[in-house]
Amino acid sequence: MSIKYGSNNSRLEQERSRKDSGFGTTTTSTKARLILPDGSFNVKRKGQSFSAWLNLYHRMITMSVFEFVFVIASAYFIVNLVFALFYYLIGVEHLNGIEEQTKYLSEFWGAFFFSSQTLTTVGYGHISPLGSLTNAVAAVEALIGLMMFALITGLVYGRFSTPSPKIVFSKNILVSPYLDINGLMFRMINERNSQLINVRVSVMMSRNEKDVAGKVTRKYYTLALEREMIQFFSTSWTIVHPITPDSPFYQQNQESLAATDTEILIAVEGMNDAYADPVHVRTSYLYNEFLWGKKFESVLSERGSGYIVDLDGINAVRNEPLNN
Amino acid sequence: MSIKYGSNNSRLEQERSRKDSGFGTTTTSTKARLILPDGSFNVKRKGQSFSAWLNLYHRMITMSVFEFVFVIASAYFIVNLVFALFYYLIGVEHLNGIEEQTKYLSEFWGAFFFSSQTLTTVGYGHISPLGSLTNAVAAVEALIGLMMFALITGLVYGRFSTPSPKIVFSKNILVSPYLDINGLMFRMINERNSQLINVRVSVMMSRNEKDVAGKVTRKYYTLALEREMIQFFSTSWTIVHPITPDSPFYQQNQESLAATDTEILIAVEGMNDAYADPVHVRTSYLYNEFLWGKKFESVLSERGSGYIVDLDGINAVRNEPLNN
Amino acid sequence: MSIKYGSNNSRLEQERSRKDSGFGTTTTSTKARLILPDGSFNVKRKGQSFSAWLNLYHRMITMSVFEFVFVIASAYFIVNLVFALFYYLIGVEHLNGIEEQTKYLSEFWGAFFFSSQTLTTVGYGHISPLGSLTNAVAAVEALIGLMMFALITGLVYGRFSTPSPKIVFSKNILVSPYLDINGLMFRMINERNSQLINVRVSVMMSRNEKDVAGKVTRKYYTLALEREMIQFFSTSWTIVHPITPDSPFYQQNQESLAATDTEILIAVEGMNDAYADPVHVRTSYLYNEFLWGKKFESVLSERGSGYIVDLDGINAVRNEPLNN
Amino acid sequence: MSIKYGSNNSRLEQERSRKDSGFGTTTTSTKARLILPDGSFNVKRKGQSFSAWLNLYHRMITMSVFEFVFVIASAYFIVNLVFALFYYLIGVEHLNGIEEQTKYLSEFWGAFFFSSQTLTTVGYGHISPLGSLTNAVAAVEALIGLMMFALITGLVYGRFSTPSPKIVFSKNILVSPYLDINGLMFRMINERNSQLINVRVSVMMSRNEKDVAGKVTRKYYTLALEREMIQFFSTSWTIVHPITPDSPFYQQNQESLAATDTEILIAVEGMNDAYADPVHVRTSYLYNEFLWGKKFESVLSERGSGYIVDLDGINAVRNEPLNN
Repeated sequence: MSIKYGSNNSRLEQERSRKDSGFGTTTTSTKARLILPDGSFNVKRKGQSFSAWLNLYHRMITMSVFEFVFVIASAYFIVNLVFALFYYLIGVEHLNGIEEQTKYLSEFWGAFFFSSQTLTTVGYGHISPLGSLTNAVAAVEALIGLMMFALITGLVYGRFSTPSPKIVFSKNILVSPYLDINGLMFRMINERNSQLINVRVSVMMSRNEKDVAGKVTRKYYTLALEREMIQFFSTSWTIVHPITPDSPFYQQNQESLAATDTEILIAVEGMNDAYADPVHVRTSYLYNEFLWGKKFESVLSERGSGYIVDLDGINAVRNEPLNN
Repeated sequence: MSIKYGSNNSRLEQERSRKDSGFGTTTTSTKARLILPDGSFNVKRKGQSFSAWLNLYHRMITMSVFEFVFVIASAYFIVNLVFALFYYLIGVEHLNGIEEQTKYLSEFWGAFFFSSQTLTTVGYGHISPLGSLTNAVAAVEALIGLMMFALITGLVYGRFSTPSPKIVFSKNILVSPYLDINGLMFRMINERNSQLINVRVSVMMSRNEKDVAGKVTRKYYTLALEREMIQFFSTSWTIVHPITPDSPFYQQNQESLAATDTEILIAVEGMNDAYADPVHVRTSYLYNEFLWGKKFESVLSERGSGYIVDLDGINAVRNEPLNN
Repeated sequence: MSIKYGSNNSRLEQERSRKDSGFGTTTTSTKARLILPDGSFNVKRKGQSFSAWLNLYHRMITMSVFEFVFVIASAYFIVNLVFALFYYLIGVEHLNGIEEQTKYLSEFWGAFFFSSQTLTTVGYGHISPLGSLTNAVAAVEALIGLMMFALITGLVYGRFSTPSPKIVFSKNILVSPYLDINGLMFRMINERNSQLINVRVSVMMSRNEKDVAGKVTRKYYTLALEREMIQFFSTSWTIVHPITPDSPFYQQNQESLAATDTEILIAVEGMNDAYADPVHVRTSYLYNEFLWGKKFESVLSERGSGYIVDLDGINAVRNEPLNN
Repeated sequence: MSIKYGSNNSRLEQERSRKDSGFGTTTTSTKARLILPDGSFNVKRKGQSFSAWLNLYHRMITMSVFEFVFVIASAYFIVNLVFALFYYLIGVEHLNGIEEQTKYLSEFWGAFFFSSQTLTTVGYGHISPLGSLTNAVAAVEALIGLMMFALITGLVYGRFSTPSPKIVFSKNILVSPYLDINGLMFRMINERNSQLINVRVSVMMSRNEKDVAGKVTRKYYTLALEREMIQFFSTSWTIVHPITPDSPFYQQNQESLAATDTEILIAVEGMNDAYADPVHVRTSYLYNEFLWGKKFESVLSERGSGYIVDLDGINAVRNEPLNN
């Protein structure tokens, strides 16, 4: 699908060859931290439709286990309150056997517990509906109970099956001696015992630059890596960007990074071996998270007939003078 | 797998090199709007098998929540009616305890509510089956209840797990000045908070053309884009087709588009970051949805330490004279 | 990863360049119909482990709905029989309330229906367990009931989510005039209303050939296609192999096909648009399923503002003299 | 994304071109058996977070069926014990009808069986809660029961849907005559009746080597294969690495393999045809699992109108003198 443009279209060719990762087309900002350290984007939306804003399924899937249980328990309580009110308004005399209960608690709470026994389909039957209206409400409530439970089951499985890799990144990004030049290095470890395979990393640098007219705009560069992909990510991986004369990082120092508000954006993709699910992780390093003239200590050692990866050592570095 | 054909096969080479997207091979029509604005195809089927036509699972997955609840509630009501009839025909004297109920409602409805208590496995037990036939029917009904519920659970999870991206497209497609030439531009915004990654767009133009014999046929062209893929679709993306001399859109105007019944077909594919599911979206613009000499206003602004995308502004354009 | 071999390794180069699809490496047979018309392979296994042979999940997923319901109903009946036996052997005097039932049916069947009420968790309670042994058995049965139901739910969802495209292939494969040569043509239609996208077809021919030593072996060839992929498979697609002088099909006729036991093997892959699931379909044509000098009639017509695909016309052909 | 480095960066080019599969970057070990025969990695983790270490979902999915049922039954027993304790401490006089039970068993076990009837939502009702506290505990327990059951359903489906291919590898890797040279050969058979498609194999050799400074390090080489991919894996596949002069395996013998602690690492990836799920399998051969001058016997034969694969014959070899 190569297309030849007239010679007067050199600006077009230039535009087309520009590296772009979805930021450059719309962002004219001069601000860093587009990706937050947890990998989410520093972007909010205005004017979303209510359902897009709510996105209940997404929230239920991604909230913590405690929040998840709390939301379900609250829903259970509220639905029972609503149905208790129905039974109460219809009249508790249509709840056969409730008089035994109301020696101990109020009629409303008697109706509440009858509701809970219906919603969960326990149905002890020491309280039972009498008359068409109460029977109909109870029949509806049991169906709602089953549908709520179908929802919970779906959500629980959704939580299970959404891949949640635990990739730990080093706290800092290092400028280290590398071969006879220097390199930008960060490290990541797969914390889970399951394997990630065909793992691919892409690293971008974004910073403010003055264009010919003196206007400051934010530019994005893809950084070339020593290697972009490994077949198995079973231990730890130190990703290296060699700082060659062609690198946009060439001859930078801490001051120039701060002055240009430099941010390093990292995207990792791979496949979870155990569940055969694709996995995507992001993180970023801001200019104040650089260390100069340091090198990572190894986290891999041998024990018995196997290997040990020490996750606590992910941030361990030693001094190592940079090459010139 | 390149194959050399004799020189007398130039027509074959030509045929093989023709861009094709699944329309051109069968469509000899001269009609536009092959893709409806909601992304579905403007094609009906005749002679489908009943099960292919019904495709119950597909319908249950894609109908609205209200329809879904309505269908389930109706099925619940109907199954209860059927079993109530069974119990009624066998004789309600085999429903122990129903005489307490039939002070308030008819024998049939008593059987109906016993059925609902069995189908949902509530089983209060104030009414209970007596005798082998009624017991057997109740045992079957409870199993059917469990299987219905398994179906509902599967459908609910199917609804959850079917990715439903909310990508909003601009209402119009613009012809705008672009660099020193002009460009065809439309815009899309990801309305959901979840991210789409590795998003790829392909744009086709279809129009009626006269062949050498004067016969009008519909032709399909893939339009070259400024960029076809972005790594993250977190904010908004304006897709640009530069109108170079090689573009099939070169030197068109509103009248020529209308005369040739021009339609722009758009297919977007990417991956939902949160659920690791592939995502496909389509839309189309008909010749009467073009705006000439307009440019999109930016929808991205900064607030505090982050960015804001304004979905309400997706259609905001300003006048901007075209280049020649 | 190109590797240079010594000049004495030309046989190796030849071996590496041989087209292979997984048949050629092991099959030394001279027999056709490796793929059955329904797309399954004509291969049986000997010495499988029991669990691999049984592969219960696979069977439950792929059997018909009627078989599926029958298997579940049978399992339900058998489990109830087993537990009824337990309750009966422990003694029905530990089933409180059963005397009301045994006026109508035997003690064993009373225990059976109590079992069914426990397994389905209906638990009316007009019969209830008494004593530690019967209580313990009932507690275990209720758990088994829940686990069986979890299994059924998983199987039901597995049946739903396993993509079952309904692609209809033309009954015959045609040798038709194509441009100024001839072509091998078959046709397929997507019977479902859901769309398949990025559909790719590969076609192989297998036939018996005599090698230099006069030994008959079965050879496999990939046939070059007019186009191998379409972006949308919304209507029908006629797949064409142009019979050029380079084609292994060049200058064949019905007799030579029969003599060499020729089989055409077809594999289709694509993605289901609605559920974002990959889809794979296979079929084959044997030498006696060829038609010579015919061409497919169009199945696409226009009605109102849309298009109609006529599935009944998939096999409709007309005579059309072949090119020389 | 090609980047030109200064001529003084030849070491960098060398580093970038080095084959790497995720071992070489971190492993400085001289030890073999990085992949265990069952395909898992011989790597342990230290300092994992508790949740990463526990990884309950992963364990429940991958344990045997017997362990799975045992864990669920234990959880059921323990939860019932806890709730029985609650009911017992509140006072069994709030369990209406328990006096009938306590003629046969202790009050605690009466409470235990009431708990089991609530947790499973059987709810016979011959024992029923009385008073607000016992009612509230029972209402909570029924909800917990439903949530436990949702978990079980999710786990059961997770177990189903996690692809578990049964690929059997030959016990030994052979050095066999191959064309006019020799080859490294191993064999695999798909034990299941479902098909694997687009199956791709990669083979690596790792061994200890002395570098110029005399230091022993472990090196990794990708071995070139006769073919790396087959479209259908329906029968058996003998993977062949031709031992050309360029092969790192050239002129090795059993002693040199043992001296360098050689390990052959194998990774297989493909797609399960029936469930459209990707599949990944690994294994390895250590230097003591080589056989020299042997060739595999065929496992494929014809019977009736079809083919038979004999899984018991996977390790059958015959003597065959090697080429020089």
